[in-house]
Amino acid sequence: MSAIRVREGKIELLDQRKLPTEMTYVDCPDWQAVAAAIKNMVVRGAPAIGAAAAYGMALAAGSLQGKERESLLAGLEEAARGLKATRPTAVNLAWAVERMMNFARSQKTENPSRLAELLWAEAEKIAAEDVVTNKKIGQHGAKLIPQKARILTHCNAGALATVDYGTALGVIRSAVEQGKEVTVFVDETRPYLQGSRLTAWELQQEGIPATLIADNMAGFLMQKGEIDLVIVGADRIAANGDVANKIGTYSLAVLAQAHKIPFYVAAPLSTFDLKIDSGSLIPIEERSARELTHFAGVQIAPSGIKCYNPAFDVTPAALITAIITETGIIKKPTAETINKFFAEQENVGD
Amino acid sequence: MSAIRVREGKIELLDQRKLPTEMTYVDCPDWQAVAAAIKNMVVRGAPAIGAAAAYGMALAAGSLQGKERESLLAGLEEAARGLKATRPTAVNLAWAVERMMNFARSQKTENPSRLAELLWAEAEKIAAEDVVTNKKIGQHGAKLIPQKARILTHCNAGALATVDYGTALGVIRSAVEQGKEVTVFVDETRPYLQGSRLTAWELQQEGIPATLIADNMAGFLMQKGEIDLVIVGADRIAANGDVANKIGTYSLAVLAQAHKIPFYVAAPLSTFDLKIDSGSLIPIEERSARELTHFAGVQIAPSGIKCYNPAFDVTPAALITAIITETGIIKKPTAETINKFFAEQENVGD
Repeated sequence: MSAIRVREGKIELLDQRKLPTEMTYVDCPDWQAVAAAIKNMVVRGAPAIGAAAAYGMALAAGSLQGKERESLLAGLEEAARGLKATRPTAVNLAWAVERMMNFARSQKTENPSRLAELLWAEAEKIAAEDVVTNKKIGQHGAKLIPQKARILTHCNAGALATVDYGTALGVIRSAVEQGKEVTVFVDETRPYLQGSRLTAWELQQEGIPATLIADNMAGFLMQKGEIDLVIVGADRIAANGDVANKIGTYSLAVLAQAHKIPFYVAAPLSTFDLKIDSGSLIPIEERSARELTHFAGVQIAPSGIKCYNPAFDVTPAALITAIITETGIIKKPTAETINKFFAEQENVGD
Repeated sequence: MSAIRVREGKIELLDQRKLPTEMTYVDCPDWQAVAAAIKNMVVRGAPAIGAAAAYGMALAAGSLQGKERESLLAGLEEAARGLKATRPTAVNLAWAVERMMNFARSQKTENPSRLAELLWAEAEKIAAEDVVTNKKIGQHGAKLIPQKARILTHCNAGALATVDYGTALGVIRSAVEQGKEVTVFVDETRPYLQGSRLTAWELQQEGIPATLIADNMAGFLMQKGEIDLVIVGADRIAANGDVANKIGTYSLAVLAQAHKIPFYVAAPLSTFDLKIDSGSLIPIEERSARELTHFAGVQIAPSGIKCYNPAFDVTPAALITAIITETGIIKKPTAETINKFFAEQENVGD
């Protein structure tokens, strides 16, 4: 169930809009097709769109053959801008595109076809690294999961949101691999239903016990003492530990704190945006009213009703028990603990 | 847009499952049809199902013609059991059915046709009282609404949930009638979408500014300082002030407290169940998994996924700023303040 499939010099993206009932791939022969697929949510999830955009950059280089080095780099810059403009909140997208752009600039070759090959190899490296990263996140995170645990998750931070294995679901997979008895409550995650359509499906495929609930049922389960911990992914983490993630995450964090339930965020280092001091600076994407007014073509709200449809929210660091990364766990994230954590890393942000 | 329409000795219930795109009425010529309509959510909302059930009892009496008084009363008992069994959480249903049953028992007439007439008149009285009650709730509640207010509501506690005017929406209507500048954020209220399908529609019809959001967006709006108060209805209120209401209400109350936002409950005295000491004793209806796995016939979750679908939750009194009733406002509801409030009423629970 790979979100990104590489075939004969192009990529194919699993059309996540059609899951769980239909499994089809969308052909992406050029960067414009990749950009459209990201914008239209064929592919979603911060690490997955990062990897897809990296391939997009490699595809751009492939289509710029016959150009001089400078004009090829200018063409790549255009693709970089186009890819980054597709979705504003997740920073992995900008991270991957900039890594590809910097990589291209740093190559000495004047041969456009060689440069395209090198960029393709770099995109494959980003994709391969993502899987390794997620498995490490899983190993670190699994330590935080009790032997028996009822876990609540929101949206999809699974294999489908990454190249494979997942971040939040990677932690759950890893705990299960270690023989822990895990049962997962899955928020359906309105309006796009990533929980019911993707996470429920992914867990079912994996044989991990899962129970689907509506978003507004999470508090009631916590009140009844049926949730031991919450774990979610992230789209961008500010230098002070504030986390942008799928809309609804903030409400869950407030509820978790009110019920004294640990609230964990699992994300690769590439999700940190240390250039911004706090979550208030993270741009929050607003999506179409139609996601709220229609379902599968059926109208579910009165015509002309005003809607507000932010796709993400920001959870203040103070509500987060720990952030789980591939190089370790940041307990009680603050500007200080995060700064210290990164100072201890070799190859920060690599 | 009356939820209950009386026509030639039968009732017609607005099929709320088809709103906002279709406005059709379901014929209810006998109590069994009324029971089915309540069970299948043609009609919903605690006061509305109470009034519908009262008419159901009158219809039962009408169909028991030719019986002796004792056998007619036995038939009415059967209808009462059948009507009360349709939905377990809202107490107005039991309240209205018991009021009709007690009324029937207290009538001296031996003439079955006369008894049916008297019961019909009593059902009409219950319906008429509901409208008066809601307007009084509105008048009391409007005092709590600032001159400019951004109000969040959940589910539908409007005209459609009552005989007319509504409880929570009655307060909003009343504030608007007094010239207050009100804008309403409407939670869509998964899984049944009473917010998007009913409340958004009702407010739009009334010309009251409304913005539709998904349930999981409420916390984010509160965080941004865009909500001044929350107001909801109730399905049952225990003697200590704990409130059972549509699933998701509890989460909103926790969020409101975390953001220091007033949280109001608007409900008639018939929603109080003083026989039970606390909300933990209120039965919570669980509904079909299909409400979560399918939408308008379209599958939105993997086949065979386990679901948990409670239709209500219980908000502890400590999270409620005030309960607004037709005879006044109970600030800081507790067993003591509620006991005192009812002691001050004439005709308690009448």
